[in-house]
Amino acid sequence: MIVSIISIGDELLIGQTVNTNAAWLGKELSLHGARIQQILTIPDDDLIIHKAIDESTSDLCIITGGLGPTKDDRTKKVLAAYFEMPLVEDEATLNHITEFFARRNRPMLPVNIDQALLPKGCEILPNRMGTAAGMWFKGKGKSVISLPGVPYEMKGIFLEEILPRLSKYYKINALYHQTIITHGMGESFLAERIAKWESSLEKAHLSLAYLPSTGIVKLRIGSNKGNVDKPLIDHKIQELQTLIPELIVGYGEDSMSSVVAKLLTKLNSTVGTVESCTAGNLSSSIILNSGSSIYYRGSLLTYQTEMKSSLLGIEPEFINRYDVVSEEVAKHMAEAGKKRLCVDYCLSTTGIMGPTSGDSNHPVGTVWIGLSTDKETIAKKFHFGDNRLRNIEMCTLSALNLLRITLLKDFSL
Amino acid sequence: MIVSIISIGDELLIGQTVNTNAAWLGKELSLHGARIQQILTIPDDDLIIHKAIDESTSDLCIITGGLGPTKDDRTKKVLAAYFEMPLVEDEATLNHITEFFARRNRPMLPVNIDQALLPKGCEILPNRMGTAAGMWFKGKGKSVISLPGVPYEMKGIFLEEILPRLSKYYKINALYHQTIITHGMGESFLAERIAKWESSLEKAHLSLAYLPSTGIVKLRIGSNKGNVDKPLIDHKIQELQTLIPELIVGYGEDSMSSVVAKLLTKLNSTVGTVESCTAGNLSSSIILNSGSSIYYRGSLLTYQTEMKSSLLGIEPEFINRYDVVSEEVAKHMAEAGKKRLCVDYCLSTTGIMGPTSGDSNHPVGTVWIGLSTDKETIAKKFHFGDNRLRNIEMCTLSALNLLRITLLKDFSL
Repeated sequence: MIVSIISIGDELLIGQTVNTNAAWLGKELSLHGARIQQILTIPDDDLIIHKAIDESTSDLCIITGGLGPTKDDRTKKVLAAYFEMPLVEDEATLNHITEFFARRNRPMLPVNIDQALLPKGCEILPNRMGTAAGMWFKGKGKSVISLPGVPYEMKGIFLEEILPRLSKYYKINALYHQTIITHGMGESFLAERIAKWESSLEKAHLSLAYLPSTGIVKLRIGSNKGNVDKPLIDHKIQELQTLIPELIVGYGEDSMSSVVAKLLTKLNSTVGTVESCTAGNLSSSIILNSGSSIYYRGSLLTYQTEMKSSLLGIEPEFINRYDVVSEEVAKHMAEAGKKRLCVDYCLSTTGIMGPTSGDSNHPVGTVWIGLSTDKETIAKKFHFGDNRLRNIEMCTLSALNLLRITLLKDFSL
Repeated sequence: MIVSIISIGDELLIGQTVNTNAAWLGKELSLHGARIQQILTIPDDDLIIHKAIDESTSDLCIITGGLGPTKDDRTKKVLAAYFEMPLVEDEATLNHITEFFARRNRPMLPVNIDQALLPKGCEILPNRMGTAAGMWFKGKGKSVISLPGVPYEMKGIFLEEILPRLSKYYKINALYHQTIITHGMGESFLAERIAKWESSLEKAHLSLAYLPSTGIVKLRIGSNKGNVDKPLIDHKIQELQTLIPELIVGYGEDSMSSVVAKLLTKLNSTVGTVESCTAGNLSSSIILNSGSSIYYRGSLLTYQTEMKSSLLGIEPEFINRYDVVSEEVAKHMAEAGKKRLCVDYCLSTTGIMGPTSGDSNHPVGTVWIGLSTDKETIAKKFHFGDNRLRNIEMCTLSALNLLRITLLKDFSL
């Protein structure tokens, strides 16, 4: 099954919006066995949209964008004209739009009512999250789906309406792959460390891709023989586990935060944070997972140095003696937080995120991360770079990883 | 000057990498007066790459990706064949690659030496940041630039080698546009509210684009007559300011967080937060801007209901009487936080982010946001949807907006 994607919107061409929709669709479709032929991004222009649809040669063409209620949105009109389907009011869609606004206690506007005017003869794909319905056109030897450009609406329609129909309409040969999530080593060093193992994959006709993002390198092992190679891939993953055990955080859709959440839940333990340089980024990462109110209790964000004294009771002399970014202060923060928040595990962060050095004598990128448990209090020093946002993210990941390793130890006891 | 972009790489099609290169190039080129005709993303495949180059009709075609040293990188060979230029060793490039590895104390591999083999007759664009040189081909009625796909290498070559040549080689008519950032009204309501004003733009041959994202709608007014229309656009923005003064957050590259940061700095005031449902997302938004340690002091994250008593001294009976998600608790949190954090402004959040209702009787998406100042304590109720991550983001934006409006009032006093 060959799919092409057309992304419509001037904002994509001039770079005001990054095309995350196409990436998401490409990932979902590949996982379900489709091959993405191309992604074409074009402006909100009737003639250009018409030409792109006419020239598409794939089994299925998925279009995103241009379905909003405003004048610059052109897609629906072009598609109706192309497939020669008149726009008529769709009762179910009108009812949905009416309810959508009623539930939000907001008046419905004429432009919203117009969104229920849909090409007669296309298959309507309901949009639970918004007011622009998806549409599936078949005709002129083509199969074309049109979806709104708002990411969560597009994803909702794809998952609820399109995916269940794909296996019915098309012959699908799913790619098989497994992903391993690593933290703690950059892409090129990791590649060097596992070079021999990587060669053994090549010999076995398995593919390996490195997918680096801030603080995380994902390794994806794939086979185009579908499930046939599952035992071989599982065996190769076992080999990797003995090669880089300390770097493997999880598998598949795991994230650092979800792995920590699972461990805390299994251990029936609570966590809190005392954050300086991360200022809430660590705690908000912990609560990304639903159900977090069971294990996450709360935090003290002592951003200004003075707050470390007023909220945690750390003497200013102590801070002056050791420097606000130091092993001693990181440990003191974690210990004081553990008591005040009444938690089993308390993480602390103190560091220089940049661009300036603040109250510390250390270079930008220096961070101490502390962790206090019932057994001990530890602290670890890190050196990140000079990019403020990246430093905040790296510090958050490193703190979660310190907690993860400690939880794993406590779990195996 | 019309430019098309070709992005090469399987990882882009299967969504393992989001195409940020194309967005970045689109933004840079638009700012410098080029019009982006289309962005085409295709796999690492000789025939498909050849066809895409052959079919490009723009004044300039910029290709990214496929220049690495590994076997799956095809771009250089296809271009050399297309423009009928033999690959020959380029001495300057070889010297650069040799130095590149020597400086990093790493051995140079044969595949790296091969990167100095470049098509004879193309203009070589040195890559200071890496080993894959950029190339500018002219021939067969086409002008084609090939750049590596590693973002910082691509950006380096573009800024250092291409941008300075563009104004020499092409007639450039810079697009002029201004962006207005709004919050507090969805795209369709906003469009209705400013419909008349939008029509007046059309009559003046100015373009308007709506760019919605979570909680924010950007309005971009553009003119293809360059700076000529600047006074007209400025006048139209003044009109808009009188139409929707309460919705306009900022302009250009402003964000909700940067606008609040500027106001706090101007007022020489401090801020803190007491967060329940946002659990640090609000505070970490406040510190996104460098220099935040001047106005942001710290926060108390009272996620579990019990923490509202232990950290803020709110009696459990008080919480039980009013519900943990209530005007009274939101105000009490903000007031207690203002005292404990010693700040001029203290924001509070308490709400149900979903998917379950936790300790409250309210439906998912209900939020109370409080703000305590020297003059008064207020609280405002919001109803968001049922998407957890979106609710957290909306609650953070709404809290910052409440602070922004209060700061604006205090500033005008």
